[in-house]
Amino acid sequence: MRENIYDNDRFFQKYSEMNRSKEGLRGAGEWPALRQMLPDFLGKRVLDLGCGYGWHCKYAADHGAARVLGVDISQKMLETACRINADAKITYQRCAMEDLALPDASFDVVLSSLAFHYCADFPALAANIHRWLAPGGAFVFSVEHPVFTAYGSQDWQYGPDGEIQHFPVDRYFYEGVRDAVFLGEHVTKYHRTLTTYLQTLLAGGFALQQVVEPQPPADMLHLPGMRDELRRPMMLLVAARKPV
Amino acid sequence: MRENIYDNDRFFQKYSEMNRSKEGLRGAGEWPALRQMLPDFLGKRVLDLGCGYGWHCKYAADHGAARVLGVDISQKMLETACRINADAKITYQRCAMEDLALPDASFDVVLSSLAFHYCADFPALAANIHRWLAPGGAFVFSVEHPVFTAYGSQDWQYGPDGEIQHFPVDRYFYEGVRDAVFLGEHVTKYHRTLTTYLQTLLAGGFALQQVVEPQPPADMLHLPGMRDELRRPMMLLVAARKPV
Repeated sequence: MRENIYDNDRFFQKYSEMNRSKEGLRGAGEWPALRQMLPDFLGKRVLDLGCGYGWHCKYAADHGAARVLGVDISQKMLETACRINADAKITYQRCAMEDLALPDASFDVVLSSLAFHYCADFPALAANIHRWLAPGGAFVFSVEHPVFTAYGSQDWQYGPDGEIQHFPVDRYFYEGVRDAVFLGEHVTKYHRTLTTYLQTLLAGGFALQQVVEPQPPADMLHLPGMRDELRRPMMLLVAARKPV
Repeated sequence: MRENIYDNDRFFQKYSEMNRSKEGLRGAGEWPALRQMLPDFLGKRVLDLGCGYGWHCKYAADHGAARVLGVDISQKMLETACRINADAKITYQRCAMEDLALPDASFDVVLSSLAFHYCADFPALAANIHRWLAPGGAFVFSVEHPVFTAYGSQDWQYGPDGEIQHFPVDRYFYEGVRDAVFLGEHVTKYHRTLTTYLQTLLAGGFALQQVVEPQPPADMLHLPGMRDELRRPMMLLVAARKPV
């Protein structure tokens, strides 16, 4: 069974109230960092794995992509995408990214935003992505940072008065399933090390172009909890290229 | 003043009793991972920054290097290196790595083992290394992992009965000086993020070849505390290349 918490009514309702859901890319703290890692979309064939509401698909379409395929396992996410981020150049398809079958060299850009930590087998998926990309193609993704996923609960360590003491890391080299709490619901995520993410790409024939842990932008530091994100790395952004 | 705890008598005495000091490369948990990242040394000109006892210099000399320059700021380390790892092909030089001046393209391989976290300005040093390397040259180094240096104390979080609970991460995006306790002595180290290490290399013209967080080898897991090193990443190993 592929992980699909987003079709849980209660979870989806809470998710829809997050800044990144209501405001789109503007509401996502990592967007300024991710945007400067994206390739030129002009005339490109773009695949978005775990497209959610379709914000990145729409961004690619608005920036000249020839066609965009957004793939997600969640029916609810795709219904919202079709409503708020529809575009003649975008096709939304319901499929688990692990089950996707596409022709070799059929895309110039593969994107994925905060989806791979739901995927049990990253090396298998990365090998597929390498096949799906044309030579010279770009692969840009964000994931929850291994520091953020290692312990499991994804919560701070609190002191006796409820104040944040630090962020706990444990079981770092024990990769696999974690029972995380996200928006008050239990969600299965997969922890893997930085080594696994990067070595999988390097050994799989990708050239690394950028590896960035995004910091909250200065103009979002006033938002609740945002300044605390300077205390731990929560996300990892990677830009890679399939050599020509 | 460049960081040089190793010329402190008490610290040096304790350091000399560590496995990695008594047994050399065999006694270093990260050596199996680092060794497989090293280039072919045959006929190469090799620079080792923060060479310590000279174990890596000797390894390069024993594996065919044409000449090896080992640089360290510590007089005591170099005296030991000259005693236990002398070789006609090796020159040991006392200098802070930040102050080193070398001709452009004068080395084929630059190594550094667990030294850069003592360096205040990694980007400046990396730019020098890029200049010192000939085209096609290899740059392989280990550092303390950003997860290990972020909080500062470099110690576990313990429970009421002295048991390890987890490893604390804090101040991750606040780069700079940390007051670490190592072998019971206060040592100034510099925390920087994974982003800074890798983006500095990528932006500086290096191609990344390997990024590895070493796990303790199976045959060392019986040593005191070694199994706990599966709970946190303590080191980061990087292999990069200056393109031809």
